[in-house]
Amino acid sequence: MHFSSEHITIFLLSIAMMLLFAKVFGELFTLIKQPAIIGEIIAGIILGPTIFGTIFPDSYNYIFNHSEQVNIALNGFITLSVVLLLLISGLEVDLAVVLSHGKKAIYTSFFSLIIPFSLGFLISYYFPNLFGIVESNSNLIFPLFMGAALSISALPVIAKVLMDLKIFKSEVGFIIISSAMLNDLAAWLIFSLLLGSISNSSGSVSFSTTITLTLIFIGFSLTIGKKIFNSIIPFLQDNISYPGGILNFILILGLFSSAFTEFIGIHSIFGAFIIGIAIGDSVHLKEQTREIVHQFVSNIFGPIFAVSIGLKINFIASFNLQTILIILFLGYLVKIFGAGIGSYFSGLKKNESLAIGFGMSARGEMGIILSILALEVGIINEEVFVALVIMALVTSITSAPFMKFFLKEKDKLKLDNLLKEKFIFFSTATTKEEVIFELASVAAKEMNLDKDFVFSQIMEREEILPTGIANFLALPHAKIEIKEPFIALAITKNGIDFEANDNNLSRIIILLLTPSNQNEIQLELLSKIAKTFENIEFSKKLITAKTQTEILKMIRKS
Amino acid sequence: MHFSSEHITIFLLSIAMMLLFAKVFGELFTLIKQPAIIGEIIAGIILGPTIFGTIFPDSYNYIFNHSEQVNIALNGFITLSVVLLLLISGLEVDLAVVLSHGKKAIYTSFFSLIIPFSLGFLISYYFPNLFGIVESNSNLIFPLFMGAALSISALPVIAKVLMDLKIFKSEVGFIIISSAMLNDLAAWLIFSLLLGSISNSSGSVSFSTTITLTLIFIGFSLTIGKKIFNSIIPFLQDNISYPGGILNFILILGLFSSAFTEFIGIHSIFGAFIIGIAIGDSVHLKEQTREIVHQFVSNIFGPIFAVSIGLKINFIASFNLQTILIILFLGYLVKIFGAGIGSYFSGLKKNESLAIGFGMSARGEMGIILSILALEVGIINEEVFVALVIMALVTSITSAPFMKFFLKEKDKLKLDNLLKEKFIFFSTATTKEEVIFELASVAAKEMNLDKDFVFSQIMEREEILPTGIANFLALPHAKIEIKEPFIALAITKNGIDFEANDNNLSRIIILLLTPSNQNEIQLELLSKIAKTFENIEFSKKLITAKTQTEILKMIRKS
Repeated sequence: MHFSSEHITIFLLSIAMMLLFAKVFGELFTLIKQPAIIGEIIAGIILGPTIFGTIFPDSYNYIFNHSEQVNIALNGFITLSVVLLLLISGLEVDLAVVLSHGKKAIYTSFFSLIIPFSLGFLISYYFPNLFGIVESNSNLIFPLFMGAALSISALPVIAKVLMDLKIFKSEVGFIIISSAMLNDLAAWLIFSLLLGSISNSSGSVSFSTTITLTLIFIGFSLTIGKKIFNSIIPFLQDNISYPGGILNFILILGLFSSAFTEFIGIHSIFGAFIIGIAIGDSVHLKEQTREIVHQFVSNIFGPIFAVSIGLKINFIASFNLQTILIILFLGYLVKIFGAGIGSYFSGLKKNESLAIGFGMSARGEMGIILSILALEVGIINEEVFVALVIMALVTSITSAPFMKFFLKEKDKLKLDNLLKEKFIFFSTATTKEEVIFELASVAAKEMNLDKDFVFSQIMEREEILPTGIANFLALPHAKIEIKEPFIALAITKNGIDFEANDNNLSRIIILLLTPSNQNEIQLELLSKIAKTFENIEFSKKLITAKTQTEILKMIRKS
Repeated sequence: MHFSSEHITIFLLSIAMMLLFAKVFGELFTLIKQPAIIGEIIAGIILGPTIFGTIFPDSYNYIFNHSEQVNIALNGFITLSVVLLLLISGLEVDLAVVLSHGKKAIYTSFFSLIIPFSLGFLISYYFPNLFGIVESNSNLIFPLFMGAALSISALPVIAKVLMDLKIFKSEVGFIIISSAMLNDLAAWLIFSLLLGSISNSSGSVSFSTTITLTLIFIGFSLTIGKKIFNSIIPFLQDNISYPGGILNFILILGLFSSAFTEFIGIHSIFGAFIIGIAIGDSVHLKEQTREIVHQFVSNIFGPIFAVSIGLKINFIASFNLQTILIILFLGYLVKIFGAGIGSYFSGLKKNESLAIGFGMSARGEMGIILSILALEVGIINEEVFVALVIMALVTSITSAPFMKFFLKEKDKLKLDNLLKEKFIFFSTATTKEEVIFELASVAAKEMNLDKDFVFSQIMEREEILPTGIANFLALPHAKIEIKEPFIALAITKNGIDFEANDNNLSRIIILLLTPSNQNEIQLELLSKIAKTFENIEFSKKLITAKTQTEILKMIRKS
């Protein structure tokens, strides 16, 4: 069986088409602030049997269903792509983060895993007909799979959403990320063992050997292996060609591990994922290296995989509304319930818990990869597959808006919500130090802090770079160990020199204190305040105000 | 025919092995200052039937000759790798450079193409038995191929060698590069048409159509296509995700073009190469973009291809010393003769012409890709293939040492070769200006330049950054329009303040003038001079010297 010139033509053409569609839709989705991968998956559905294959069946078959040779070559390339995709997902997992966030992370992780898994398992075990499965097969494969599919989270999508919402480094962000990591790890493990138990096609080892070797592999990779990488990586980064050398090192390890796990009877991507975690945990791995590997994989292998999903199946022909709605409902329910309960019990507020629940409901590419493998080995039928893909897409798209809605923090970040009458005062101060001390005293009283300490923190920042803006506004600020942002406002009778851009003396002095670990919030509030005062007429009016109430009203109306 | 779990295991394992060996040997060769690709090719010979396959035939067959499925999947991946490799080779071609270097480049390009091609053609036509071909086949295929194989140059390898020798931007460097570009373009064109004429396996179009479409494709790509890319690229670089967007744009275009050329009956890699030229010619393509594409391809696809060469064949079994020696001899002869004559006629010196001849003899991966394709379609047998690969390797390895040998410039870049007695004098100057004017006068007289002009050039540099080094040495320097570096030395009776690092006044004032287009030479000479004086005892001794002869002797011995 020869790989002829015609096969080469079609092979190259199909990859070119896949990349082209992936890129166009990926960019479009980036424009509307959605993860590119969602656009890429939709590109695949358009390019696949669902749309292109239905409208132009001949062209579709010529390009994407040409011959066994081309199919195998494409299959090989797609396999490689998924392996590399899981490798970089693994790199993003940082097990230390889970532990470092103590009770809250552990509670949330645990419940967001156990509840979806149990609910998924029980519902599919007792009501298989909900998923269009009529014959009562007594085995546990399908229920176990549904448990795993519902308990997985899409770490890459979730990370992207958190970054977009600027809460990646907030407490809620950390809890979501660490729970998602643990969910992924556990769900993959369960699923890989499941696959191992049913697909004996490699036939090389028995199931008990598979389990033993898997546990040894995980144990070794995440302890001794991790330590070895951690000591080799700095050497490689310094002594072989950079970035080529380290990139290759990571790819080679990923490929060997995936070949190994495939050989012992669990799926190749599990090996890539675990070794990714082991490598990514190294404190010596430069951020730049991580970024390069990421760019490398996500610019060709990622899109190729994403598009290939849609090529598998006709989504319209296998579209079963009932199955979709049930799985979609379950998809939200189990995570909101599981992750939400976990975080609520751990002491988070109700709205935060709901936000975490919706955030973790995003299944993204992780859920889809699981579904593809399950479809391939016959655990699920095409209708359930379509429903799972749609559930993964919908939950991923909705996670950001829902989180935004529940995290009222975002709305709280408004000047008029933070500023209260008691934090507004009229001052006769004549120097920077004087007025800042008055403001610091108000803040210190409110938050039970030492006022000299608060004062020194603000002055330290002020001395580096004076905070006079323009239009009579000065904006002294500091990051300190507090939970919520704090704003106080002084109207001074005398102008004070804060070295404003327009050389005017400042009359409206607003103090902004923000939690020390939340850089984005400080920046956002600073820019909001500056924006409020960008019109000089507003400043002039504010200065003439006679009472705190009047000032607050003006700011609310602005 | 299913791509089973076992196939996946072997597919991933074989890629991991290929990358691992490629990386190890590539790094080793980088260490000994050879292009990585040579190490990667040797890694393939070790991993292939020649060594690994002979010693452990079972393991070899299990990994690299496992089943049709794995072979096809690997084949697809390797095809993709070669296409991308040619794409980046095309990006490196800058047709404008050829024209901008006028007569010299055009002469050299022309002769370095026409002589190797004619000699290769004639010798293989009249003496096919030299290559072990006994049956007298009247057709022209083999002679035409040998013409193309001998006239090609390895642009990537040559560029690397020139950079290592620090003459990439010298006149000789430009001539070599521009000739290599033209050679590559022409040789690929000839060979692609040759392939088109014999392999009608795609069967889609007739040979005359192939020629017509090829010419249209080249014409279109290098004129209208080039203009279109040139205007699209800035838009893409600014408006879509960077670098992912532009990287994908280049890859997608490359893949479509290669599919197109494969379809019309010439090889896929020709399309990638031509479109690479068209894209690379865009003045708007950022250097960073070029670098990223390069990194992307050369870190996984490049090594995979390089290793795959050795996997094709047992180099020892097909080792025919006579064939190898003849092809090696021809490989050197035709290029030294062709490129050498061309550059000599164009007015370059004999040693420079010889250097160009040896430089252009490097066939690198280009010659090998040609040979692989020729082997696959049966134009050459395995013995000729092995000989061509060895010729490509040997000419690539030797090009740097030979060039170094003939470009005596490198040896001339020694202090004691440049410094002559008549350029050494004792001065009673007391100021910077005075001594620099004396030095400038010596230089101006020697080179027939205006001394005020030379003085002002040196002072301009001096005023930006004083050139006092340490150990009584000052090193005023300038780049001006001269052909050869110039050095003059003054020993001053009085110390002069050149603001040296050790705060000592300077007594040894060395003037260095270098050709204005040769940055590397200036840097090299500056560092050599500074190094000569890094021991203060040497400076002290030199200051006590009584005669020019004594000074020169001391410097020679240093």
